[in-house]
Amino acid sequence: MIVVMKPDASLKQVDHIVTEIERLGLRGHIIVGTERTVVAALGEKRDGAMQALETCPGVEKVMPILAPYKMASSEVKKEPTCVEVLNLKVGAGKIGVIAGPCSVESREQILLVAQQVKEAGATALRGGAFKPRTSPYSFQGMKEKGLELLAEARAATGLAIVTEVMASEHVAMVAQYADVLQVGARNMQNYPLLEKVGESGKVVLLKRGPSATMDEFLLAAEYILKTGNPNVILCERGIRTFEDHTRYTLPLATVPYLHQTTHLPVVVDPSHGTGKASLVAPMAVASIAAGADGLIIEVHPDPEKAVSDGYQSLTPAAFAALMTECRKVAAALGRSM
Amino acid sequence: MIVVMKPDASLKQVDHIVTEIERLGLRGHIIVGTERTVVAALGEKRDGAMQALETCPGVEKVMPILAPYKMASSEVKKEPTCVEVLNLKVGAGKIGVIAGPCSVESREQILLVAQQVKEAGATALRGGAFKPRTSPYSFQGMKEKGLELLAEARAATGLAIVTEVMASEHVAMVAQYADVLQVGARNMQNYPLLEKVGESGKVVLLKRGPSATMDEFLLAAEYILKTGNPNVILCERGIRTFEDHTRYTLPLATVPYLHQTTHLPVVVDPSHGTGKASLVAPMAVASIAAGADGLIIEVHPDPEKAVSDGYQSLTPAAFAALMTECRKVAAALGRSM
Amino acid sequence: MIVVMKPDASLKQVDHIVTEIERLGLRGHIIVGTERTVVAALGEKRDGAMQALETCPGVEKVMPILAPYKMASSEVKKEPTCVEVLNLKVGAGKIGVIAGPCSVESREQILLVAQQVKEAGATALRGGAFKPRTSPYSFQGMKEKGLELLAEARAATGLAIVTEVMASEHVAMVAQYADVLQVGARNMQNYPLLEKVGESGKVVLLKRGPSATMDEFLLAAEYILKTGNPNVILCERGIRTFEDHTRYTLPLATVPYLHQTTHLPVVVDPSHGTGKASLVAPMAVASIAAGADGLIIEVHPDPEKAVSDGYQSLTPAAFAALMTECRKVAAALGRSM
Amino acid sequence: MIVVMKPDASLKQVDHIVTEIERLGLRGHIIVGTERTVVAALGEKRDGAMQALETCPGVEKVMPILAPYKMASSEVKKEPTCVEVLNLKVGAGKIGVIAGPCSVESREQILLVAQQVKEAGATALRGGAFKPRTSPYSFQGMKEKGLELLAEARAATGLAIVTEVMASEHVAMVAQYADVLQVGARNMQNYPLLEKVGESGKVVLLKRGPSATMDEFLLAAEYILKTGNPNVILCERGIRTFEDHTRYTLPLATVPYLHQTTHLPVVVDPSHGTGKASLVAPMAVASIAAGADGLIIEVHPDPEKAVSDGYQSLTPAAFAALMTECRKVAAALGRSM
Repeated sequence: MIVVMKPDASLKQVDHIVTEIERLGLRGHIIVGTERTVVAALGEKRDGAMQALETCPGVEKVMPILAPYKMASSEVKKEPTCVEVLNLKVGAGKIGVIAGPCSVESREQILLVAQQVKEAGATALRGGAFKPRTSPYSFQGMKEKGLELLAEARAATGLAIVTEVMASEHVAMVAQYADVLQVGARNMQNYPLLEKVGESGKVVLLKRGPSATMDEFLLAAEYILKTGNPNVILCERGIRTFEDHTRYTLPLATVPYLHQTTHLPVVVDPSHGTGKASLVAPMAVASIAAGADGLIIEVHPDPEKAVSDGYQSLTPAAFAALMTECRKVAAALGRSM
Repeated sequence: MIVVMKPDASLKQVDHIVTEIERLGLRGHIIVGTERTVVAALGEKRDGAMQALETCPGVEKVMPILAPYKMASSEVKKEPTCVEVLNLKVGAGKIGVIAGPCSVESREQILLVAQQVKEAGATALRGGAFKPRTSPYSFQGMKEKGLELLAEARAATGLAIVTEVMASEHVAMVAQYADVLQVGARNMQNYPLLEKVGESGKVVLLKRGPSATMDEFLLAAEYILKTGNPNVILCERGIRTFEDHTRYTLPLATVPYLHQTTHLPVVVDPSHGTGKASLVAPMAVASIAAGADGLIIEVHPDPEKAVSDGYQSLTPAAFAALMTECRKVAAALGRSM
Repeated sequence: MIVVMKPDASLKQVDHIVTEIERLGLRGHIIVGTERTVVAALGEKRDGAMQALETCPGVEKVMPILAPYKMASSEVKKEPTCVEVLNLKVGAGKIGVIAGPCSVESREQILLVAQQVKEAGATALRGGAFKPRTSPYSFQGMKEKGLELLAEARAATGLAIVTEVMASEHVAMVAQYADVLQVGARNMQNYPLLEKVGESGKVVLLKRGPSATMDEFLLAAEYILKTGNPNVILCERGIRTFEDHTRYTLPLATVPYLHQTTHLPVVVDPSHGTGKASLVAPMAVASIAAGADGLIIEVHPDPEKAVSDGYQSLTPAAFAALMTECRKVAAALGRSM
Repeated sequence: MIVVMKPDASLKQVDHIVTEIERLGLRGHIIVGTERTVVAALGEKRDGAMQALETCPGVEKVMPILAPYKMASSEVKKEPTCVEVLNLKVGAGKIGVIAGPCSVESREQILLVAQQVKEAGATALRGGAFKPRTSPYSFQGMKEKGLELLAEARAATGLAIVTEVMASEHVAMVAQYADVLQVGARNMQNYPLLEKVGESGKVVLLKRGPSATMDEFLLAAEYILKTGNPNVILCERGIRTFEDHTRYTLPLATVPYLHQTTHLPVVVDPSHGTGKASLVAPMAVASIAAGADGLIIEVHPDPEKAVSDGYQSLTPAAFAALMTECRKVAAALGRSM
């Protein structure tokens, strides 16, 4: 931590900062510059208590030096992590594709689409049974019945099942049916839920919150890792910005950035990331080109009749065409999928 | 809902939209313009299913007409709601002030600060017992012990207790001690939690998520109202933007906007909204001037030693001075506090 | 400047940084921490060349310490600046009010509204003669004819004239008629224009760009100040964020923030800052409460027939009522207007 | 344009809207819904005057139907435009690569790097002679001397010259030396400059402003097209968001979105779009995969000694490696470069 003093800070104010730094168990190091004095705190802890020094007289700002996460950091584990369950392999060179409808709507729908995405090359099936909906008047999901249908689709196709869990009290139930527990963007900082899914031992797909910074995202992953569960897949799904021609802004630079800072695999969700079916395919291909370890894509047998997210769902045919493009790009870059 | 067709849309494509609108139980009305055709859906429902028509051939965009919330709307209930508990009165002309530390740290701390904020004019005490912290390495709160100390502070001062509840499984416990259940910004779209706090019958202080639109904010309130609990206080606490000289951007125009669209009271949190102690007072006064029904402010007996949020906490003396300013401005505008 | 090395940076890489720092005429100071090494550059210059060290091997990031502006800084001039022209006084305790239509539309319109805003208490008249319009198909202003009408309105009322100049080649002409040259938000970083308005010697009203940080805003002011012209008024007019219930987000915390960092006066434009007539008054009052040195407000004799910005213009009666509220709040806070 | 009335709007208020619509030369069409009445304006013009109806009593909101641009629209010209000058071909299937340093620094530097980028496959050379710098204390460019050196580099390599013009008064001079006039992000809405570069007849590279919407971007292009100059290249270079791990957020979905809405070619600038050398290559490859018609990339013979933008400049070797990757991905997708 670096404490930058104001230009007119007194010696006494500088001394006070050194005293406070030592009270926190660190060592203070004073650097006298030409315009202002700076105090470096050596032996820095990551708990944020030092930030309070910003209210001390004579202090201009407090700047952290260390990244606040540990177990997620590529400094701690240099080799990239590959997360595996059934045929889904994500990370360390492997590209996994998770596809399926926003919501499980019926037995026919989910069995049909599972077959279709499998044939096109998906290795996991997504489908919402518990749906977090912005409006209380929207369809809230088929709940446990939906989970049963997902399990039936797995039995029929061998695809791993990825589904969202919205509440701590449902973790045990969802974990009975699903292979991957998805924590949705709205719940990225629902810490009790993060701990519960961590403790379940299941693979966790953690979606970035739409206004989360990279540090916040990795600290959310750290909550899961701290439970002893190493199987975390990060998912970029778009952020809230002023752009209004897409539902969210999909910032693909997070993919190479995360590859430099964490060993965890990173998948991209171009369906939510754009919110428009016509933009999903080019952004999916771009994700692979940017180095993504996987994709999660909404596919529906008949998007215009979907009960949710129809506007951003691909038809099975469009998805199959997209898979072909992705495989070509992956191959061109020396990767396989 | 208005469906805007592309300029080259065929008659058959327009007909298909009308058919789909009727399948959803609405009535379609075609308007042929000079450049393109538009189809209005009459009898609109609020469940969002129509949005899927955006994937139909020939459709350019689908534009909703109705606000998606009902019970929170000032169209449904024209007179503003006043939420009351003990001496805290918020809304319909009453201004309530909630003050106290970020975290309950000790018996001495919370009893001292409760007395101090009461003397300065606060009508409720805030203090975190369960703390949602960005980092798992940060102080997580005193938990039930903290709740007991808050109840003791209420007994000593008569202040209403406002404290955050982070998890559905804690609602019953927190409701035993607190007068107002706070749903934090990170949990604004934690729908199971919203339903649980609604069902508790307690007053709920709902913080705006840092990237929530007004519609999303009011729909989150709607989740609570739908349980039959009318006692919801909305709280603007700042949004995520590109600004980096404050921790969040505090958009006070939400206060008059919400007063035009909802009957629910609106309080402002200038502590989180700025993240800098030196900016809290002017923004608190500005909030009152903008018509806010209340304030929630972090006050700590010794901010530089606070275990959390010290950088944005006022000293008791600064808080007392601020209350004086706020009272003057409220009086100038014909309101009392 | 602080150069933070990666945890595995070699001694040679650290030495290279020190060498580069010295090549730039500064002095390097190595601090060996428990997790990583940091190099402080003493005698820092403000030209940004050091930022390039981020590409050196072993470097994690480069963090500036100094604010990049000088002449605008309150470190250089502690007492606040009051900018004056005719009866318009802005800053150092004085509150100035600039009001008038978006565009000068006709002789009748501008003379009428000038009289109306003067009676209500404005000390300057705004009105666009050269209009920067998002669309080339929109009304582009009356140009020099508009300037003549503004001068006539000054002659009739004594109000100072504030009008926008969009192009370097118009500065001389506009300066002939106007008292205050406005640089619009779109031109905040049009550096040749900033220099030209600076050299004109006229008072300059500099609007914040909708995505400008405070450093960028103050550096734009610095371009003007560097020409020797000290008469710069800063204007907060709202920023681009994800919010869609207002045209821009108006972040009033910039007012106290700027008062802490610069001696220049700060006025607020709640018309553009909200883009909705119904929100202008509460945000104007809130601006005064936050400490603003002035307001700039769109007023039109008949907003629904305005050729531009009608949706955010007040009627003269609404403006007069607003002035009364503002005066009350200013008085309550010990200021006069 | 659709005018949505409030639920309690009176018949008289609806009639007033119809009258106003007819005053503007349009035709009003009333649609009575179950919850509120809507008035459609047929024969819509694009000049924005109707927006003022939002201030009329009884009106809730005014929603435009038509895109505000014409000549840039793919509705007007369906086949994609290819812009060509010397060996640079951009659009309609052709991929052009523009590379070179942020600033022209010396004869040796620019001639060397021109040779290097040409060998790697670039078809145009970028280099700043007039530099818009955030700080007045930063290097402002070599000005006309820099232009001469660029022309010399063209003579030596055959590369087309792309360089920024910052001021209307420099257009003639810059046009003497350059093949493509770049309008920088800060000047995207500098309308007099847009008109001047349009009138020059030169190819124009128009960079998106960091907070510009797609409509604003295309309307800026429309200002150029309206002068009769059809040779406009759009450039996505990143937007301002809350993200702080990159200098800007690079939203690649603009590429396919623009391909659907305009016939103009779209290039991407991953150097400014990320602001970090280590992220440039993956984002360049992703841009090609997303369908970009070209790239503009900062390359410097010795980035750590660059006088500007060193932190985001590639070495010539890194650039050559990147070109190889891009060619592979383009080939995989059936395109050549």
